[in-house]
Amino acid sequence: MGDLEIRRATAEDVPPIVAMLADDPLGAQRESPDDPAPYLTAFERIDADPNQHLVVAVREGRVIGTLQLTIVPGLSRQGATRSIIEGVRVHADERGSGLGTRFIEWAVEESRRQGCQLVQLTSDATRTDAHRFYERLGFTASHLGFKLQL
Amino acid sequence: MGDLEIRRATAEDVPPIVAMLADDPLGAQRESPDDPAPYLTAFERIDADPNQHLVVAVREGRVIGTLQLTIVPGLSRQGATRSIIEGVRVHADERGSGLGTRFIEWAVEESRRQGCQLVQLTSDATRTDAHRFYERLGFTASHLGFKLQL
Repeated sequence: MGDLEIRRATAEDVPPIVAMLADDPLGAQRESPDDPAPYLTAFERIDADPNQHLVVAVREGRVIGTLQLTIVPGLSRQGATRSIIEGVRVHADERGSGLGTRFIEWAVEESRRQGCQLVQLTSDATRTDAHRFYERLGFTASHLGFKLQL
Repeated sequence: MGDLEIRRATAEDVPPIVAMLADDPLGAQRESPDDPAPYLTAFERIDADPNQHLVVAVREGRVIGTLQLTIVPGLSRQGATRSIIEGVRVHADERGSGLGTRFIEWAVEESRRQGCQLVQLTSDATRTDAHRFYERLGFTASHLGFKLQL
């Protein structure tokens, strides 16, 4: 098993990222991996925003994981900056390899480096395995996450 | 009751915003309204970020509500941009006046204007009144919200 690299995503990484987003019980219903255009447009917006960090995990030249870290300055908690982790995916071949743990630990460390006092994320209520995973990593399921589709 | 204005917050609005953050069962333990310095530093960071929209609700020159809207471009859901609502507070004198509803409706409308396909927020599991409020406004409590303090 070669070395793992975690680095900023480039436009070339978008197709393998989208394939991972689609290879998921929830993602299968909402992604369109055969049409890259909307994803490439979105990539440009993400890449241009200095508070967005879309990253990939790469092993032997192959993209095997992705996540997006957003840095959000705020007033509450004495002006605390928080980070939000979204879009965490690990390639099906790599699940159970410890990559998820290394990846989230990387995101927590990067949040600290960026001066954040809080890391947060939401996880679909049906993803019970993910909930245990985040609790093992020290996260507390203290909140309910609400969504409204426009 | 005079007209309600919802507008971008300025540095002068920071003290009344912090007073509202502190006047709350959870906020009372984590805010320091007597020391404005960390809040003013945080305000500068928020104000400089074009994807942060810290707003106040004002009636007859008095700040009676605040919320922060963050615009987050992303790859998932076919390159959907989402907005995140944080730090919603309504002045104690104004609770039950319908201001909260108008305020969240404003945030949803602004999210649409900014091209978002999804609005999301998290609410502490203990705030059961808030949960009913968001559900009445069309939000679905589909997720668990995890936090890790650094």
